Amino acid sequence: MVVTDIATRTYDHNFRLDPIVRSLLDTDFYKLLMLQMIRHVHPKVDATFSVINRTHSVRLVEVIDEAELRAQLDHARTVRFAKKELIWLAGNSFYGTARMFSPDFIRWLSDFQLPPYVLEKHDGQYALHFEGPWTHTTMWEIPALTIINELRARAAMRDKGRFALDVLYARAKAKLWQKVERLRMLPDLVLSDFGTRRRHGFLWQRWCVDALKEGLGDRFIGTSNVLLAMDADLEAIGTNAHELPMVEAALSNSDAELAEAPYRVLEQWRQHYGGNLLVALPDAFGTTAFLANAPAWVADWTGFRPDSAPPIAAGEQIISWWQRHGVDPRGKLLIFSDGMDVDTIEQVYGHFHGRVRMSFGWGTNLTNDFRDCDPDGAYGLEPISLVCKVTRVDGRPAVKLSDNPEKATGEPGEIARYLRVFGGADRVASAVEV
Amino acid sequence: MVVTDIATRTYDHNFRLDPIVRSLLDTDFYKLLMLQMIRHVHPKVDATFSVINRTHSVRLVEVIDEAELRAQLDHARTVRFAKKELIWLAGNSFYGTARMFSPDFIRWLSDFQLPPYVLEKHDGQYALHFEGPWTHTTMWEIPALTIINELRARAAMRDKGRFALDVLYARAKAKLWQKVERLRMLPDLVLSDFGTRRRHGFLWQRWCVDALKEGLGDRFIGTSNVLLAMDADLEAIGTNAHELPMVEAALSNSDAELAEAPYRVLEQWRQHYGGNLLVALPDAFGTTAFLANAPAWVADWTGFRPDSAPPIAAGEQIISWWQRHGVDPRGKLLIFSDGMDVDTIEQVYGHFHGRVRMSFGWGTNLTNDFRDCDPDGAYGLEPISLVCKVTRVDGRPAVKLSDNPEKATGEPGEIARYLRVFGGADRVASAVEV
Repeated sequence: MVVTDIATRTYDHNFRLDPIVRSLLDTDFYKLLMLQMIRHVHPKVDATFSVINRTHSVRLVEVIDEAELRAQLDHARTVRFAKKELIWLAGNSFYGTARMFSPDFIRWLSDFQLPPYVLEKHDGQYALHFEGPWTHTTMWEIPALTIINELRARAAMRDKGRFALDVLYARAKAKLWQKVERLRMLPDLVLSDFGTRRRHGFLWQRWCVDALKEGLGDRFIGTSNVLLAMDADLEAIGTNAHELPMVEAALSNSDAELAEAPYRVLEQWRQHYGGNLLVALPDAFGTTAFLANAPAWVADWTGFRPDSAPPIAAGEQIISWWQRHGVDPRGKLLIFSDGMDVDTIEQVYGHFHGRVRMSFGWGTNLTNDFRDCDPDGAYGLEPISLVCKVTRVDGRPAVKLSDNPEKATGEPGEIARYLRVFGGADRVASAVEV
Repeated sequence: MVVTDIATRTYDHNFRLDPIVRSLLDTDFYKLLMLQMIRHVHPKVDATFSVINRTHSVRLVEVIDEAELRAQLDHARTVRFAKKELIWLAGNSFYGTARMFSPDFIRWLSDFQLPPYVLEKHDGQYALHFEGPWTHTTMWEIPALTIINELRARAAMRDKGRFALDVLYARAKAKLWQKVERLRMLPDLVLSDFGTRRRHGFLWQRWCVDALKEGLGDRFIGTSNVLLAMDADLEAIGTNAHELPMVEAALSNSDAELAEAPYRVLEQWRQHYGGNLLVALPDAFGTTAFLANAPAWVADWTGFRPDSAPPIAAGEQIISWWQRHGVDPRGKLLIFSDGMDVDTIEQVYGHFHGRVRMSFGWGTNLTNDFRDCDPDGAYGLEPISLVCKVTRVDGRPAVKLSDNPEKATGEPGEIARYLRVFGGADRVASAVEV
């Protein structure tokens, strides 16, 4: 374990010492799993990713200096996979499987570079887009989010004295440890760090991961951050994301093809991966529609990751579906990862304990909870709801409906078409906090 | 301001890097003021100082290794005043007065060395005595206390992991800052650090002092620790202690002389010092007796430091006494320094605000409050009530009655004689927490 005096490092910040993107492994594990598959299935597809700040009240243009943003984005484009990183990716086991990544994929990664970006300003927000082959633009999602989130945090801390920073981090540490002490009251907890994209900063995420490792022992099963997994000898955790059904849907040439898109993605996935990686994300176009039309073989998968419906309702819905398919939910897995914090983890754990296997992916509220920690009482460290989503695929618009209309993305006309195809049943709007 | 990662330093502790006594200035300022006077008034008197652990439940012999204790005591005996320290003592102003310490005294300090010690074990406690000229033994009080307190803290932390230490200090910092935030609600607060003797450790005391400096601004007037005052460019704070009347009393040859001893000390003091240093400590043999027999000129002094009676009762008693002497208390000063913490500071401040000038000497609960901070929930960091008192003077027993019988020291027969001479009126027993 590396102990860093985060307060001092923050005070002394200098670009060479602490660039935001230090490694291309400083990304979520699912990006690599998806990328390997994308290269096989859609090597020629172009996909545009766009950064969207759902917290409109925070006008990022007024907070983050454009030159600094460009400098960090440019720096990220200079980073390559290091030899030791590729050796580790090739040699390490993931989810109990050796040689998860093919030699051909590893060779391809050795030349990988993040593609160019387009940065403009619009209505107080940065319009940041990545255009080009999906095999390249997909890798911008996490670095783009960490760069903006961390630049915002640095801006909020820029004028702080060394002492205020010391107290800030002391409070944040005490706060997180309080959460850890509550979580370890849950004997069968299974939890992993999903906080890379929304983190306060890299050093802070590393401390949070060390805290979970120390405090939860075996109940902390790993981190979605590949670099931290490598450095701290933890399991890399993650499966797949909405971009897969979103691209597949956008490529559909008819409403009938569109309705089948989510299941084509599962077909592709099970040709590449097995075991605990067989986790379906049901909510891209609404969980109710997904379950209503899902082929029977989806019930053989390990589980689901409900990601936008209220977790208890979504869990009950999926359990009923398993039961209708004659499957005992106690052998199945639900992964909860949507804005979880200790309160909701306790509720969900208590609700489903003994009825289904559960795993929690803890994100923003793990790696970016500085609420009430600032001794100056200043604003600017509260997390914002920033995402980086596929917006266009080979010139066509991409859409996500989600179970929560507040999380929908896409052009209004296309959203209407998707709602016609999938139906909007059971979608419930609730404020997106993080 | 020096920022130290205390958790890492604690984990890496090694004797050469962090001996407990680093400097002979790492003592309370009042020791130097008293020493200069003792050299004039009683250069030939022998005084034995003894360490007394009033927290009997903590058996120090079982906590602190004797060899380590001897090594730290021996190390302290090798330390001399550094040239830069003596130059600073000679050249700095104290309490607005230049040349507080005479060139003769400074020259004498340059040869100063802590005298030998006698260390035995008795009933689970260390019997630690310092015998010899008062001009030398007096200087052991603070180093003896800091060595034992810090060795105890180090023992409690020895088996802790690096992470547990990180959380421990994060919590202690957050806890102290919470106190600072409450204290700064008091607009006319005047507060200083009196926590050297009971501190958790030197690095921690330095952090606490930095916290007060940062958080209270001008309301934090300085520290009793001379080394920290020098290093952090703060005022050195302190006046005099019970050892002065205790030695003067022990040297008395009759009950009549004994009854006058407390006032002889004040006579001596006012021949050496003036202004805000004219603060009387009234409780060595009971505040009621002291005030009843005090000469009228004591009402001309700047103020009093009640140190063992309940603070509000003691303050009211002194204010009445001033009023009986025709003195307006609003021009007078009360210094509260007996086991204060935020609750009692708020109470006393609220009670006397506008009626008298107040100053608070914040000790143990400033520099050694780790209650509920240990992530392992272990015991051993709670402060204990450890003192180092004069026990014999030129072969005669020394006595302190105090306003709180729990704080009395001396042989029972002598205590009885002192009670006969001074009376025991208004002495109220209350548990000694710190």
